[in-house]
Amino acid sequence: MENIEEQVAKVIEEAKEVEDSVSVHISKTISDEQTLRQRVLTLHSKIHSLRSSLYSLLPNNTTLVEKLDEDLERARCIVVDGDAATLLPAHAQGNFLRMFIGPINVRASRKDVQLKVKEEYNSYRDKTALLFLLFPALLLILRSWVWDGCLPAFPVQIYLAWLLFLYTGLALRENILRVNGSDIRPWWIYHHYCAMVMALVSLTCGIKGQPDCATKQRGVELFLQWAMMQGVAMLLQNRYQRQRLYTRIALGKAKRMDVVWGETAGVDGQLWLLCPMLFILQGFEAYVGILLLKTAFVGVVSEWQVIFCGVLLVLMAVGNFTNTVQTLMVKSRFKAKMRKSKSKQRLN
Amino acid sequence: MENIEEQVAKVIEEAKEVEDSVSVHISKTISDEQTLRQRVLTLHSKIHSLRSSLYSLLPNNTTLVEKLDEDLERARCIVVDGDAATLLPAHAQGNFLRMFIGPINVRASRKDVQLKVKEEYNSYRDKTALLFLLFPALLLILRSWVWDGCLPAFPVQIYLAWLLFLYTGLALRENILRVNGSDIRPWWIYHHYCAMVMALVSLTCGIKGQPDCATKQRGVELFLQWAMMQGVAMLLQNRYQRQRLYTRIALGKAKRMDVVWGETAGVDGQLWLLCPMLFILQGFEAYVGILLLKTAFVGVVSEWQVIFCGVLLVLMAVGNFTNTVQTLMVKSRFKAKMRKSKSKQRLN
Repeated sequence: MENIEEQVAKVIEEAKEVEDSVSVHISKTISDEQTLRQRVLTLHSKIHSLRSSLYSLLPNNTTLVEKLDEDLERARCIVVDGDAATLLPAHAQGNFLRMFIGPINVRASRKDVQLKVKEEYNSYRDKTALLFLLFPALLLILRSWVWDGCLPAFPVQIYLAWLLFLYTGLALRENILRVNGSDIRPWWIYHHYCAMVMALVSLTCGIKGQPDCATKQRGVELFLQWAMMQGVAMLLQNRYQRQRLYTRIALGKAKRMDVVWGETAGVDGQLWLLCPMLFILQGFEAYVGILLLKTAFVGVVSEWQVIFCGVLLVLMAVGNFTNTVQTLMVKSRFKAKMRKSKSKQRLN
Repeated sequence: MENIEEQVAKVIEEAKEVEDSVSVHISKTISDEQTLRQRVLTLHSKIHSLRSSLYSLLPNNTTLVEKLDEDLERARCIVVDGDAATLLPAHAQGNFLRMFIGPINVRASRKDVQLKVKEEYNSYRDKTALLFLLFPALLLILRSWVWDGCLPAFPVQIYLAWLLFLYTGLALRENILRVNGSDIRPWWIYHHYCAMVMALVSLTCGIKGQPDCATKQRGVELFLQWAMMQGVAMLLQNRYQRQRLYTRIALGKAKRMDVVWGETAGVDGQLWLLCPMLFILQGFEAYVGILLLKTAFVGVVSEWQVIFCGVLLVLMAVGNFTNTVQTLMVKSRFKAKMRKSKSKQRLN
């Protein structure tokens, strides 16, 4: 009896000790992290200030400036692409994440985990792109072969619910990527918010059947065709962006967390296929939007949802177009600068 | 010029050093954590095995057994309620979280952060309960005062979209709480999945207006009334559960991460109000479900959505009822055991 009482007393003692050890471990980790964070921040800003003063300090020695600039870029990459990057300040977790999952921290504390998140996002987009192509294709095939040219409401609603779920997932994942240091352009996230709203609004809009099915469902039909094109474009983009990212990582020009939705420069081989494809897609998106608006104003269908979706599609097309063009302009300005500095180099 | 070249070289050196320090820090943290985790696990299982052998080791000394049992419970609380708890294995992150946010880790590494998550969940539920009461109340008031007894589709759809968002948020948060060590009953999470599906399906179901609005919208009206009752019950539950949780924490009987959705025992004062309220609510839920089924089979409204929502409501009512009764039975069995051991004590 002594024995068991002693054991219990020992266990309580041990529990207190373990709890103390864990608390000490946690606070030590936090304070060490704080010290390291300070070092990383100081270094990061030093690299930045050195780089921006290079040209003014060495106005006549372009060769040396370029060499030093490259060196500094390498130093920057070591900092932003390694474990140290987890200590750099990130984008704040926005309201969207907070609304859905609350204030839980989604920033990974190790670089390899951040990269795993990125990889998973890529594979999610790959699977998604395939479904984006196959789902509407199936609907359109069944429509002409089985359903006599008139889509029943249920499969379309399943498709819309899937779109809603998909865009919510993409928006959440992209917000998480941003917190983990990705440089994704905010527009592509806003675009997914718009797409979420559109899927939700379309769900409330009863799919009209006979009589006069062809006219009433013209908007749905065009939307499905556009979605198929979107699927093909997404597959191409995913391939292209992965290649480009790997090339840029190999060249030390990109962080591995970069996301390049809709960006369109770099590996020139596939670009001549992708770039027109994106513009056609955006044009077609705007066309579907305008057609929806026309259907609503001519009076074939008079629901507010049709007008709303039409306006949203046009806005999204314009936004996509603007952002693609902006990206292309940034790239070409960058290329021009490079060319200029190279010709200067030759003159020297 | 020497000067700047030296500076750049120094910066590169520093970048490598910082990166190394961070990597070392991270791997050291992980290995320290591993050692501590082993200690916590061993201790946790030791407490468990000691507790279960108490009665067999001391069959004739109930007083001592109870004293030691209390001591061991205290030891267990130190382990599961402090920082050490973050090292205990948690529920795996389920498919639902993975579907929406991918494989990102949502487990907090500090107990105070876990508790902040819990607190935020509680305040989210409080805000929610209030809206749960006010939103349908507003709809019903406007219906009789402004809309002449016939709800327009748009406000109801906004309400349904809000429900969809709300249940998605609750389901995500509860999954995150589970990962962080809460013992929430799985049913309440499944219940929110069902509610999500129901909100989504209801969205696809056009709200019917004139002619014969009163009959067609009877289901919607009852649903809104039920939602108001639900809001009142949620407010009561939140108050009750917080009180109970704080009492139990003070008594050292509960982990601070416990969630007690729908549980119904403990502070007996409010229980006699809450318990019948919950059963009435569940009965009313089943009644609305059956009424929807009747509307569908009599042929007033013939959409599949009505049948689907009816079946879902009945299932949810049955599930809620079963889980409430099970919780009550667990509690009363626990109380009976306590009474038995006390009378034994008196006999001894």
